[in-house]
Formats: sequence, structure tokens, C-alpha cells
Amino acid sequence: MEKPGLPSGTRDFGPETMIQRKYILSIMQQVFESHGFGALETPALENLKTLQGKYGEEGDQLLFKVLNSGDFLSKADNQWLAEKNSKALAPSISDRGLRYDLTVPMARFVVMNRDKISFPFKRYQMQPVWRADRPQKGRYREFWQCDIDVVGANSIVSEAELIEMYQEVFAQLKLGVVIRINHRGILDAFVPMAGSLEAWQQFMIVIDKADKIGSDGVVKELNERGLCNTVAAWEFLEKTQELPTNEDKLAALRSFADGLNNQEFKERLVRGVFDISKILTLVESNQNVHLDVSLARGLSYYTGTVMEVVVDDGKVPADFKIGSIGGGGRYDNLTGMFGLKDVSGVGVSFGLDRIYDVLQAAALLPSAGTEKHESCLVCAMDEACLDYAYDLCNRLRKQGEKIELYPGTPKLKKQLEYANQRNFGSAIIIGDSEMEQKTYVMKNLVTGAQETRKFPQ
Amino acid sequence: MEKPGLPSGTRDFGPETMIQRKYILSIMQQVFESHGFGALETPALENLKTLQGKYGEEGDQLLFKVLNSGDFLSKADNQWLAEKNSKALAPSISDRGLRYDLTVPMARFVVMNRDKISFPFKRYQMQPVWRADRPQKGRYREFWQCDIDVVGANSIVSEAELIEMYQEVFAQLKLGVVIRINHRGILDAFVPMAGSLEAWQQFMIVIDKADKIGSDGVVKELNERGLCNTVAAWEFLEKTQELPTNEDKLAALRSFADGLNNQEFKERLVRGVFDISKILTLVESNQNVHLDVSLARGLSYYTGTVMEVVVDDGKVPADFKIGSIGGGGRYDNLTGMFGLKDVSGVGVSFGLDRIYDVLQAAALLPSAGTEKHESCLVCAMDEACLDYAYDLCNRLRKQGEKIELYPGTPKLKKQLEYANQRNFGSAIIIGDSEMEQKTYVMKNLVTGAQETRKFPQ
Repeated sequence: MEKPGLPSGTRDFGPETMIQRKYILSIMQQVFESHGFGALETPALENLKTLQGKYGEEGDQLLFKVLNSGDFLSKADNQWLAEKNSKALAPSISDRGLRYDLTVPMARFVVMNRDKISFPFKRYQMQPVWRADRPQKGRYREFWQCDIDVVGANSIVSEAELIEMYQEVFAQLKLGVVIRINHRGILDAFVPMAGSLEAWQQFMIVIDKADKIGSDGVVKELNERGLCNTVAAWEFLEKTQELPTNEDKLAALRSFADGLNNQEFKERLVRGVFDISKILTLVESNQNVHLDVSLARGLSYYTGTVMEVVVDDGKVPADFKIGSIGGGGRYDNLTGMFGLKDVSGVGVSFGLDRIYDVLQAAALLPSAGTEKHESCLVCAMDEACLDYAYDLCNRLRKQGEKIELYPGTPKLKKQLEYANQRNFGSAIIIGDSEMEQKTYVMKNLVTGAQETRKFPQ
Repeated sequence: MEKPGLPSGTRDFGPETMIQRKYILSIMQQVFESHGFGALETPALENLKTLQGKYGEEGDQLLFKVLNSGDFLSKADNQWLAEKNSKALAPSISDRGLRYDLTVPMARFVVMNRDKISFPFKRYQMQPVWRADRPQKGRYREFWQCDIDVVGANSIVSEAELIEMYQEVFAQLKLGVVIRINHRGILDAFVPMAGSLEAWQQFMIVIDKADKIGSDGVVKELNERGLCNTVAAWEFLEKTQELPTNEDKLAALRSFADGLNNQEFKERLVRGVFDISKILTLVESNQNVHLDVSLARGLSYYTGTVMEVVVDDGKVPADFKIGSIGGGGRYDNLTGMFGLKDVSGVGVSFGLDRIYDVLQAAALLPSAGTEKHESCLVCAMDEACLDYAYDLCNRLRKQGEKIELYPGTPKLKKQLEYANQRNFGSAIIIGDSEMEQKTYVMKNLVTGAQETRKFPQ
């Protein structure tokens, strides 16, 4: 018989890991709900036409597609079958796919329920998503996202509130983080310099890789792609980014705006600078909120603020590298993809799996099953004692005791080994004498102290 | 643009429904954990070889298969492509599928982690499962199961405990239920009468439908299938089932056992009667635990006790029909399918979606958003007030108030409409005078009473 296994990039979460994951999720849920966000859950299965075309070409390729049920080949295109053309054949044999993120399903939900929702719609959603990516450290094919969004309002108080919610969650998790923010209006200012929207978009793709390829790498790639005009833009961004404070950076951007001739892009830049400045004022303690003028965030649907969270904590070993553990931004037309225009929204995501990995590396997770706990294991010496033990368990549980019955009567040694492995703090052993005397003996498994008590009536 | 929709048989759960679903889930979780069960989560994606062959031929057909990534046709069999043979082609283009239940993934987990687990392994698991079934009322393609199992112990105290956990959960949900139990040993007693194991299995399939086709239907179908010998068995079961009490039924089965010549099946029957009798004794209040001698439960892996939960509550409208809302039983060889023999276990499942539907029909769910709650909405008259309002919100939230800021400054009427739709109990309106006087006015939206307070320092 073949040994059973898991699909690559997926994981089981056993009881000890689940305690730790629930610890993280419950902190998030409490912060989300205290700010008035309500839960949403959408199905794992979505129609592929809902998902496709929303995440760029690369995203489309990473969608998990579900084979149609029954005789799926009956509707398949003969030509593509004969040519073995997988890409062309897929649409005729697969109508549904697995959710790729929580944002597009949320937009679909908003559009489908536009008449029932009270806007601004504040929702949180904590569910797994699936991507047919190459699995590697910190990257899984089935992983969780935890999203919060405010849909149908355009005030930047929402940005400020989301940033404070990031701060609240990570403060409760005791993890030091930096929240990088930027604004598309600031990046848009370089469209005139790039010469065309297309050239600017390429510029964005290149600077998005700065963390990986370094500044020299950026300059090299910009020249290679023939984006020579934008090298100066990158140099300006880099120089601005080196300024010590957010205020210095904002001042440099304001000077830059003064020198811009293109009125449209000048206005966008001024708006971006104003928004960022306002957000930094609203957020009560903004020491860990850093303006990062080169932060682009890949997703094309952002139109205003963009942000991401990175770890900044001495408790995390220096050699532990992981990308951003959260991110998001404002989108002015997310529901437009489903025909509902002019709905502005802003949202951020928490990457549960990466947060878990970081907390584990920093030893910030609650100890999982390594300490004795307050539960008591009831052990019976033989079948006759088991009935008495069962009854005792029920009575003690009703009195509020945390109590478990060992389900069987193997040798006492085996039962006590189990008590030890599961870290029970105490044990009750039921033999003939306890039954005769209508008592039970509770043994503290840490101190060894014993106490004889009467069977509860 | 096409209107977005959901795949047939799937659902969104908006914030109000989620409050109700979480209400049910949190009761279950609390009961499970108080009995020492730990959480397990397994991935939605499983290798198809893990799933296939575990649920019978019908189950195999209901598995959702996921198309391999990339050029999936490159490994496809040319003959099956040419013949458009979907069934034969599928294995060469799909390696993974969606979880069909929580039992098989749990068995896989136990086998893969046998060296790390402390047995008896007590786990609960609450996750969605997927079946490509025809959607209808109370039957979905994506639905939740909530399972609890004790793996690696064979004492029937576990059966008794699981039954009491059913009772605890439904008592907390205020839903009256009947728990039907039976034992495979009792049903096995009719193998000699049927003449062969095969005939007996057909007999099981027919009597499993008794609820739907009635007693006459059972007799008719038994005769049609040439199972004439088993008609007497059915008549005995039916007559026994009509006896008023569990004790009467057990007595009838004991007499029946006395008349059996086949020693092997006689022993199995005696064991079944003994187990059921013992379970009924252990369960503290067994008024709603009914021996149902014809209860078969479809799944073939059960080897001992079987049980199911049906609704029995006057609060549920008489015309509301739904099948069982839970069920389970003992299996002596579940992990045998993955090569780990002699691991006995017992488990039961709660059907979250059906339980939700029943509770809704019986008006037993917490009212979702129809009553004013204690939260307060802060409304700002204009942009200048919004900063003050944002600061106020933060300060009041720190004092423990449930408070939300309206993210924007539309007309006050619109903001108060939102407060009304979302059932806020009170509102704070910030205008110029409040800012000048460093105060705020809290208005009770139920009574209309207003109170002026100082801005918190």
C-alpha cells in the first residue's frame, strides 16, 4: 500500500498548531469587531469568469481550475483536443475555480448584494485562498488571508483607522513592525518623465523589485529596457527615500511638485502628498509608519494610498527573511469589474501563514503543549471501575472542573504516560477501594501531592 | 457586462448570517474543548488517490477534481482523448481533488503522524467539504461538517460521551432532538437469514430507505430483488422497532439471539445488545436516546455502534422536513485504508448547514441585526470636524466604549440613516460648537435623550 501524503504546498494543522493559529486569528477578530467590521465568508468555489482577468496574466495561470462534473469531454472542443492545446481546451472543460484572493469575491458579493448592504460596508474575511504557485519557504499553495475593507466611502480616515488596526493587532501579538505607506498620486507624477503610460508601468515593475535587485540592479534594468528617462526619477525617489523623516520626504515631494509643468499629474502628486500628510497626522502614534516613496505594490487596482507591513523586531533572528506580512490600499473602481461604478474602497490584508512563521521564529507564540495545564485525567483500573469513573467525570465537569476520562482500561502505566504526554496537571485513579468508600483520590502530577475527596452527590 | 453569480450549490455568508453561524460553531467548539478534544484542520486539496475508493462508486463520482496546472494535456492519454472518454481520461489530467468529508483526511493525518500523536487521539474538525451532488433544499455542493472522533481506543465510554456531547450541544442550542442508535452486531445477525453477505448487503441498502419508501415499499423491493428470505428479518425488525421502550427492544433481541444457531453471528448480536445496553446505562439522561434496530447508516466502514440525530421539537414547523442533522459510529479499521491496522475509533458529525436551517425554521437563532445594540456611531458635520471626531473615537474606544466613526462627511441625514440601518444604539454628532467647547453630545437613538460630555483628555 502506498504511503499517504499531502499535495505539495499544503499542510495539516494539528491540535498544537491550531491553538497557536487560533490565538492569532482571535486577536485579529477581536480588533476587527471592536472597530465595527462584520464577518463575511464566500465559497471556495467561484465561477472562473468571476476570477479570470482580475489578477493579470500571471494570476490567471496560477488559478486552480476545477474539472466539470460528469462527462466533461462531451462539450470539449475537438480541435484543441486533437492539438493537445491545454490552454485553449481548459475553458470548455472547467467552469469553476478556487478563490485566488478575498478581494475579488468581496467585490462580487458587494455587487450582487448592493441593494441589501448599508454602505459604507465594513467587512472582515478570514479564509484560505489557493494559488498554483511554486511552493517554497513562506509560500504555500493553500494559505490564509485575513482582509478588512471599507467599501463605499472615500475619506482617508479609513486609511488611518486601518493603520491603527495594524498597530493594534501587532501590538497584541508583541511583534514590532514597520508600516510602509505611499500613494499612487506620488508615483503617477513620473508618468510625464517616463514619456508614456506604458513606459511608466514598466518603470513600476522594475522599482517594485528594488528590495531584491538593489538600486544598481534597478538602474541597470531600466537602461536595459530602454527606460533611460526614468533613471532620473529613480534617483530622485532613492534620494528622497534616504531623507530621515516623513516630513523631510513630504517637503522634497512638495518641491518636486512645484517644478512640474503637467497640471494633471501635478494635482495628483499634491493630492497624494496631502493624503499621506493627513494620514500621518490622524494616526495617534506614527513612529512606525514610514513614507516609502518607491513602494509600488504590484496590484493594478490601487488608485490612492498603498501600504505594506514588514517585520522590525530584534526578537526575530537576523537570518530569518520573509517578505511583507500584510498590505493593501485604496481602490476607486474595484466593483467596476462587475459593472458597479464609482464605489471607492480601501482595504488591507494580513498574511496569517507568514505572521505565524515570524511569530514562531521570534518565539512569540503561546507555548503549545509544553506546560502542564489545569485539566485532570481520570483513569480507571478495570472495566468495573470505568462506569464509576464515567459518572464521576460527568459530575466533576458539571461543577466546572476541566476533566477527561481515559477511554479504556489499559495498564495504569500506559494511562499515566498518556497523562504526561498530554500534559495533564492532575490525575484521578479509580480502583476498587475508591468505589467501596465512595471517594476519589486526586493526584497533582507536578507536586505529586494527593488528596482524597468524597464522590460528588 | 455579465452579471456576476455564484456556482450552483454554493453560498455567501454575509455579516448577519455569520453572527448566527459563529453562534452555533462557538457552542460546538466550547463543548468539544471542554471534553478535551483538540482542533485539527486539513487542506481542502487532497491527492485524489487519498480520496478515491473510500466513498463507494457513487462517492467517487461526486468528487470535485482539480485540473493539473500548466500544460495538463501533455501527459494525457491519446486514446481517451480521441474517444472523448471523460472517465478514463480524468486520472491523467487531474491529480488532486477537494475534500469530500473530514473522516478520510483525519485517517490520513493519523497515519502520517502516528509517531507524534498521543493515542487515544481526540480531535475535532470544523471545515467545509465539497460534493458534486445535485443541489436541492438542505443539500449544498460546499457545506460544513463538524466532526469529533476518538481514535485509538475501543471502550464504549467514548460512545456514551459522544452522545452526551450531542445532548449538550443541542441543549445549548435549545433544539429538541432524538438520538437514534443501533449496532452493526445487531444487523449482522441477519446474515445467516439472508443466506450470503452479498444478499445481506442488499438487504441493508433496502432497509436504509425505509424512512423514504415506507414498510410496504421495503417488502416490495426485497421481493423484487429476490431477497425473499429477508422479508421475515424486516418484519422482525419492524415489530421490534414498534416496542415502546429500549428495554423491550433489547429483550426481544436477546430472545432472538437465543434462537440463533450460527455461533459467530449469535456472538456478534449478543455483543451488540450488550454494548447498546451499556451505553444506555452510562448516558446520564437517556430519554432522547432511542434504539432503532433498523438504523443502518450507509457508510460501509462502521463496525460497531451507529447513530444519527433527528429533530424532535415542536418549535420546528410541521411542514419543515429535513433529514438527519448528525450521525456517526464506531469503525475498527478506518486507518487500515492507509496501511495502519487495528486502530479502533468512534466519531460523530454535526451537519452545520442543516442545523442552521432547522434553527432558523424554529426561530432559535440569535436575532441578526434587528435590535438596537450598544454601539455608538460618531458623525462629523464637515471635514474639519472629522479630525476631531477621529481623535474622539480613539479616546472613547480606549475607555472601552463600542464606537465607530462614519468614514466621511455626507449630509447628516445620510449618516443617521446608516446608524439606523446598522442599528446603532446611540450617535455622537460633531459640529463646530462641540469643537469650540471641547465637548461632544451623545444621543440615545432609542429614547432620543441627549447628554453633553467633555472631550476625554
